[in-house]
Amino acid sequence: MVGFQVMDVFEAIKKRKSVRSYLDKAVEEEKLSMLLEAARLSPSARNIQERRFIVVLDKKTRQKLMVAAKNQSFVGEAPVIIACCAIVTDYKMTCGQLAYPIDVAIAIDHMTLAAAELGLGSCWVGAFYEDQAKKVLGIPEDVCLVEMLAVGYPADSYPNEKNRLPLKEIVMREKWG
Amino acid sequence: MVGFQVMDVFEAIKKRKSVRSYLDKAVEEEKLSMLLEAARLSPSARNIQERRFIVVLDKKTRQKLMVAAKNQSFVGEAPVIIACCAIVTDYKMTCGQLAYPIDVAIAIDHMTLAAAELGLGSCWVGAFYEDQAKKVLGIPEDVCLVEMLAVGYPADSYPNEKNRLPLKEIVMREKWG
Repeated sequence: MVGFQVMDVFEAIKKRKSVRSYLDKAVEEEKLSMLLEAARLSPSARNIQERRFIVVLDKKTRQKLMVAAKNQSFVGEAPVIIACCAIVTDYKMTCGQLAYPIDVAIAIDHMTLAAAELGLGSCWVGAFYEDQAKKVLGIPEDVCLVEMLAVGYPADSYPNEKNRLPLKEIVMREKWG
Repeated sequence: MVGFQVMDVFEAIKKRKSVRSYLDKAVEEEKLSMLLEAARLSPSARNIQERRFIVVLDKKTRQKLMVAAKNQSFVGEAPVIIACCAIVTDYKMTCGQLAYPIDVAIAIDHMTLAAAELGLGSCWVGAFYEDQAKKVLGIPEDVCLVEMLAVGYPADSYPNEKNRLPLKEIVMREKWG
C-alpha cells in the first residue's frame, strides 16, 4: 500500500487547487487505481454509466495532447492525463439538461477530491480542440471527449486559493432575490 | 459545533448514495452552512462563479417543487431542497462544452460528498419541469435551474449500492479501445 495521509472531505475540498506545475515523478499505479475507482463509484443520471476514461502516461502522446490543448505546457508536463469521455446519447433530463456532460463532471470532481487526499495535484482541462485530441487518442465519432484531467505531484507548494464570492452573494433563502 | 464523524474522501465516496427517503428532522444550520461552503469553494471554468443556490426549507414551497418534480415524493419529504442555478452565459469551453451545467455539477458533487461526511443523505433531482420550478422560486428568465439537490437525514439505513460497471469496462490505456 502506498502511503498517503487520510484526509477528511472538507480538508480535501480546501486543499484541492488547480495545479499547473508538476514534478517529473510518476504516479503510483495503486493511486491511479484509486482515482479511477472514485470515478467508477460516482453517480450518473439513471445510472447510465456512459463515462469512459483513457489513462495516458506515454510522453509522446501527452505532448500531442498538449498541442491540442492550445500548448498549455502543464498538459505535457503532468505525468498523467486522464481523457474523460462519454458515449453520447441525446438523453436529456426532464429539466432540459443533457445528462452526459454533467455525468462526466461528477466523475471528474470525485477524482479531484480523491487526488487531493492522495497528495496529488490535478487540473481540469477544458481548453482543447476536441477533434484534434480525439484524433490523437483514436476516439470514435460517437464518443465525446468532454474534459481532460491532468494529474501528478505538484511542483510547488500549492498555489494560493482563488478568490471566491462570499456565501451571501451566492446563496438565497426560500426564493430568488 | 454539531457533531459528526470526520470521514475520509474514499469513505465518503463509498457512503454516498442517492437517498430517496428522509426522516422528518431538520438539518442543523451549521451543517447547511458547511454544505454551502463546500459548493462555494468548488472550482468553475475560468473561476466564473456563475452558480447560485436557493435553500428551500418551507414545507409549502417544497410541496410545490415536488409537483414540479413529477410528484417524486422524496422531493417533498426531504427537509431541505437546494435549487442549484446558474446565471446563464453562452460561454463554451474550447472543447465545445457549455461551462455552466458542468460548473453547477461540480458544486453539487462537492455538496453530496460533504453531506455524506456530515451524516446526511442527498439526492440529485434532474427530473423536474424547469419552467414550473422556476416559477415557484421566482427565478428570472436569464437564470437556469440546472438541478435540485434534496438533503436530509436518511430514513432507512443506506440503500444498497447500485451496480457499477467494473473498471476494466470503463478504463482504457493510452488509446481508445
